[in-house]
Amino acid sequence: MNYPIAIENVCPEIDCGRFPAKAEINSKFYVNAEIFKSGHDIIYAVLKYRKKGKRKWNAIPMENKSDDIFKAFFIPESTGYYEYIIEAWKDSYGSMLNDIIAWHSAGEDISEDLNSIHNIIKYAYSKSINEDKKYLKESIKKFTSMDIEGKLALLNDIKFSSIIKKYQKKEEKSIYCKKLELISDPEYGIYASWYELFTRSQGNNGSGTFRDLILGLDYIKNMNFNVIYLTPVHPVGTTARRGKNGAKTALPGDPGSPWAIGNESGGYYSINSDLGTIDDFDELVKTAGLSGIKIAMDIAFQCSPDHPYVREHPEWFYHRSDGTIRYAENPPKKYYDIYPLNFEIKNKMPLWHEMKNIFIFWISHGIKIFRVDNPHTKPLDFWEWIIKEIKTEYPDVVFLAEAFTKPNLMFELSKRGFTMSYSYFTWRTGHDELIEYFNELNSPPVKNFFRPMLFTNTPDILGKDLDLGRNEFIIRAVLASTLSPLWGIYSGFELCENERLGNTEEYLNSEKYEIKHRDFNKKGNIIDIISRLNYIRSYSNALKKAEGLLFCETTNNKLLAYIRFNDDLSEKVLVVINMDTENIQSGHVRIPLKELGMDENSIFDVNDLLNNNKYKWTGMYNFVMLIPGRRQAHIMVIK
Amino acid sequence: MNYPIAIENVCPEIDCGRFPAKAEINSKFYVNAEIFKSGHDIIYAVLKYRKKGKRKWNAIPMENKSDDIFKAFFIPESTGYYEYIIEAWKDSYGSMLNDIIAWHSAGEDISEDLNSIHNIIKYAYSKSINEDKKYLKESIKKFTSMDIEGKLALLNDIKFSSIIKKYQKKEEKSIYCKKLELISDPEYGIYASWYELFTRSQGNNGSGTFRDLILGLDYIKNMNFNVIYLTPVHPVGTTARRGKNGAKTALPGDPGSPWAIGNESGGYYSINSDLGTIDDFDELVKTAGLSGIKIAMDIAFQCSPDHPYVREHPEWFYHRSDGTIRYAENPPKKYYDIYPLNFEIKNKMPLWHEMKNIFIFWISHGIKIFRVDNPHTKPLDFWEWIIKEIKTEYPDVVFLAEAFTKPNLMFELSKRGFTMSYSYFTWRTGHDELIEYFNELNSPPVKNFFRPMLFTNTPDILGKDLDLGRNEFIIRAVLASTLSPLWGIYSGFELCENERLGNTEEYLNSEKYEIKHRDFNKKGNIIDIISRLNYIRSYSNALKKAEGLLFCETTNNKLLAYIRFNDDLSEKVLVVINMDTENIQSGHVRIPLKELGMDENSIFDVNDLLNNNKYKWTGMYNFVMLIPGRRQAHIMVIK
Repeated sequence: MNYPIAIENVCPEIDCGRFPAKAEINSKFYVNAEIFKSGHDIIYAVLKYRKKGKRKWNAIPMENKSDDIFKAFFIPESTGYYEYIIEAWKDSYGSMLNDIIAWHSAGEDISEDLNSIHNIIKYAYSKSINEDKKYLKESIKKFTSMDIEGKLALLNDIKFSSIIKKYQKKEEKSIYCKKLELISDPEYGIYASWYELFTRSQGNNGSGTFRDLILGLDYIKNMNFNVIYLTPVHPVGTTARRGKNGAKTALPGDPGSPWAIGNESGGYYSINSDLGTIDDFDELVKTAGLSGIKIAMDIAFQCSPDHPYVREHPEWFYHRSDGTIRYAENPPKKYYDIYPLNFEIKNKMPLWHEMKNIFIFWISHGIKIFRVDNPHTKPLDFWEWIIKEIKTEYPDVVFLAEAFTKPNLMFELSKRGFTMSYSYFTWRTGHDELIEYFNELNSPPVKNFFRPMLFTNTPDILGKDLDLGRNEFIIRAVLASTLSPLWGIYSGFELCENERLGNTEEYLNSEKYEIKHRDFNKKGNIIDIISRLNYIRSYSNALKKAEGLLFCETTNNKLLAYIRFNDDLSEKVLVVINMDTENIQSGHVRIPLKELGMDENSIFDVNDLLNNNKYKWTGMYNFVMLIPGRRQAHIMVIK
Repeated sequence: MNYPIAIENVCPEIDCGRFPAKAEINSKFYVNAEIFKSGHDIIYAVLKYRKKGKRKWNAIPMENKSDDIFKAFFIPESTGYYEYIIEAWKDSYGSMLNDIIAWHSAGEDISEDLNSIHNIIKYAYSKSINEDKKYLKESIKKFTSMDIEGKLALLNDIKFSSIIKKYQKKEEKSIYCKKLELISDPEYGIYASWYELFTRSQGNNGSGTFRDLILGLDYIKNMNFNVIYLTPVHPVGTTARRGKNGAKTALPGDPGSPWAIGNESGGYYSINSDLGTIDDFDELVKTAGLSGIKIAMDIAFQCSPDHPYVREHPEWFYHRSDGTIRYAENPPKKYYDIYPLNFEIKNKMPLWHEMKNIFIFWISHGIKIFRVDNPHTKPLDFWEWIIKEIKTEYPDVVFLAEAFTKPNLMFELSKRGFTMSYSYFTWRTGHDELIEYFNELNSPPVKNFFRPMLFTNTPDILGKDLDLGRNEFIIRAVLASTLSPLWGIYSGFELCENERLGNTEEYLNSEKYEIKHRDFNKKGNIIDIISRLNYIRSYSNALKKAEGLLFCETTNNKLLAYIRFNDDLSEKVLVVINMDTENIQSGHVRIPLKELGMDENSIFDVNDLLNNNKYKWTGMYNFVMLIPGRRQAHIMVIK
């Protein structure tokens, strides 16, 4: 633990290494650290990594970027857990070479120092192998017969010095005090376009089915979504079933909320027979898959009073002092149609393993994406356990946390294992609050463990701003689809549905409690725009990775502007949005050319991906005018 | 490791607990953390601590300050290492009581819930002992016969509820993932006023001695200093001895730099016979101690070529390829009079133990404070090892790092064990840079491991600003003595000595190379002011502790203003300095009344401790005028 070289401020490192950092398969995973020691020696550092469970480490030399900052990356080539550490030692060769150069330019005699560095070279030669040995043998032979200037040139030669450094003694070797971990996720844990729907609304009359959905797949495919998220597909409880608009009593024929899970025909392993059979479900997963669309499944660990568990495992629920089972309560509210499970009962492991079995059952039916309902009401240690259990066995499976709660708890769920998370996006509508929120999400440490999934709307959230109508729907779609590689809409958004229940955030005649039959050709829809947004995303590495986000100053704060870019700055996308749904807004956008590695007087092309218009821009400040009804936003590639 | 309750952002916690936080004996050590869990339950948390090596933990309930922030403190009652951890569990009683109150005020029937809480009460009673059991027995008897309002009143009773909470089941118990450590230092590691001198300059002619210094103690005592720091007292090398102003060759009679340690008469264990004997030294330590003054000793681990180690342990030094010993080099500079020790030789432990023996030898001669010369040129792991070795055995011993190097390395030395450290103070002379630097030092994490020792000058550093003369000397003395509980001057500062060698930061005719005979009655001296500053410090808890520092806005940026305060705000000292040495400056100072726990319209007394003037101030903005030559600064107690 007590080493001569200090290795500090390693990033990523989540809560002192308590939790794994998040990474993406086949993408660069950057690690940086401050590394320094006493005295004047220079330091050689390596980043070492391995797949968890393997013995052999791979070592990558770290680059000394500036002052004490060292940086390197590696590419996880499979999904699952990896480990990484940092090691550093004195760069004896480099340190002595520095001294020699300083002495030489001060006009001092360096013959003695050349002798000393010759010893380092001879040691490295003795340890070298194969090609390196051959090369060093040649070089040393030349070295001994060279004059001083020749010797200095060879010592400074990049190939020569890097081979010497590879084999030199690891003096003062120091190891970072912690082994860190990352989880490498499949691409759809980082980049995805989601479409949320109720299967029962997919037909033309009565309850829609999986078969109806299969027939309607083209509609979703044509919008270029690549994930369909199904609200729960299990049998729906009848006890205390809710009616239209959440009424306390249902009328005959009311289908109930799909989140009141289970009835006498089955629970988490079963399919609501109104939607079809398990075979139909399998068929849906398969057919969608052939179109490049994954099915995301809703997991809501809360039972209707009719769920089989109530009879078979009454010990898994909360009990009153008289022994009866407690329904869900959040004083002064009561939810008679829901029995919460008690995950902290004394003998909890049978319950926890049963929950794990539910995931594994649906994984066996082809599901790789789970959207978990209200994880913030279940214990943190339960999630840490179950996600680790499943991801160790099925590293391709990802989890989305639907937790709308305080920031600490939302972040904690991601630390404990959730691949991605719902966010406060729907409530961030102003220019400044969007900048503040997304700057927080895009900075370490949050950036390294939290992946925001930006839903424009959900069956529970019809944002107040959507009262502004179609142009606001466009604004929100552009924001959601470009501020995070993960975005989604809930069915009806593309039709600009915004009828509200009173002054609440609920939809009027919420689909949670009734079947909808929509007219997908409704006038004023934004289907084309959404298709285009998803299309643009699918071809842009700058939008598919969560790497770079830089908000730009504008001379008009009705204009929100930001740049998304990938790590090597090879792709840069500028988004400019008129946040005003009614009035033309114009002004100048300041392009941070320096930060983008461009000259301050550059002349550069910008191509609008929304309409293929091309412009030539010059220097930092460039003029933009956006006209509601004609053009609400630019999404422009900077070349 | 996987617990249901999240315990995060614990402070103090230095580099994930890798290093101990710093604390002071008999002073409050505050710990805070973010503690939260899923769901709506409230949490009960305790801070546990123990002296390192003891088995039994002491538990302090933590106060939930706001949101998820919990806070508590304990008082280390001895010097040395302590351990602390945090534990938290569900506050079942408090959570249920919250629900009961919510249901009751919503007009719901709570009889069932009162039954449930009765079970918690009965469990607590069964576990309670002594007085608590008696009290609970009485209370429960009353409870059963009370009406609902009576029951609610008892349940809310602070005594009743805190006893129940003490004995309730620790459900969902969670333990912080790391055991943290602190080092409790003696008062003189936190608060001290240092006077640095060369013993050889203490006489009236020729080399001064310890006996001369004993005779001159009153001079230092009258200035209210409580530490005398002696530059090295060991035999001085003769090989390549430096002459006046650092000349490469000494003339006969030149005493040499005391930092070139060792000659044929001895080394680190010996006394330079010009200064007296070891008995004289012991007498000095004893006599000074009787006056409340500690002797700080200089430890400079670098040898003159004449040091006995060179003969006895040539293997402890650096060698050229021809086997000769290397003198100190920092290309293109060479220091022929110094042989650095090589702390990283293969068989290093005999050297390391020898170094430890040096400390222990001087500890046995009454030394408790070591000022370590250039620790940043020796390995970090050496310091971590040796300081831990010594402080484990002698927890009353403290170490001052004299490291003027990059911030990372200065901070690292403190993390590795140095009790206190020299700082950049001498180079921070402007209004804004003082604020920036001291805000950094007074904020976590730096505040929790780094204690700045503010020297106004050293034998190596005569700050350029001191060319401005007497008023600048006053400014610097006020700053140093009030911006940190640790400050010091090097002899001559009180006489406003500022003759400079060329345009360097070196003194002309530096005392490092020659004996000085000073006139301590020199006209224009600031002895009275320094005496007063040290006197004020000795009576002010706000200045003696490093707790609170708040810079105040002023309407004139030639006026620098700040408030020092202790943790409970019972003492508040306002310092206002005219940073202009020539001109009268006046303006308003904004007193941050709210932060100081005072009403915004307060009328309050301020007493100037420098001249006993009293003023009545009102509200936030108050007028100040400071006249160079008459009054350069206010140091005012706010009552």
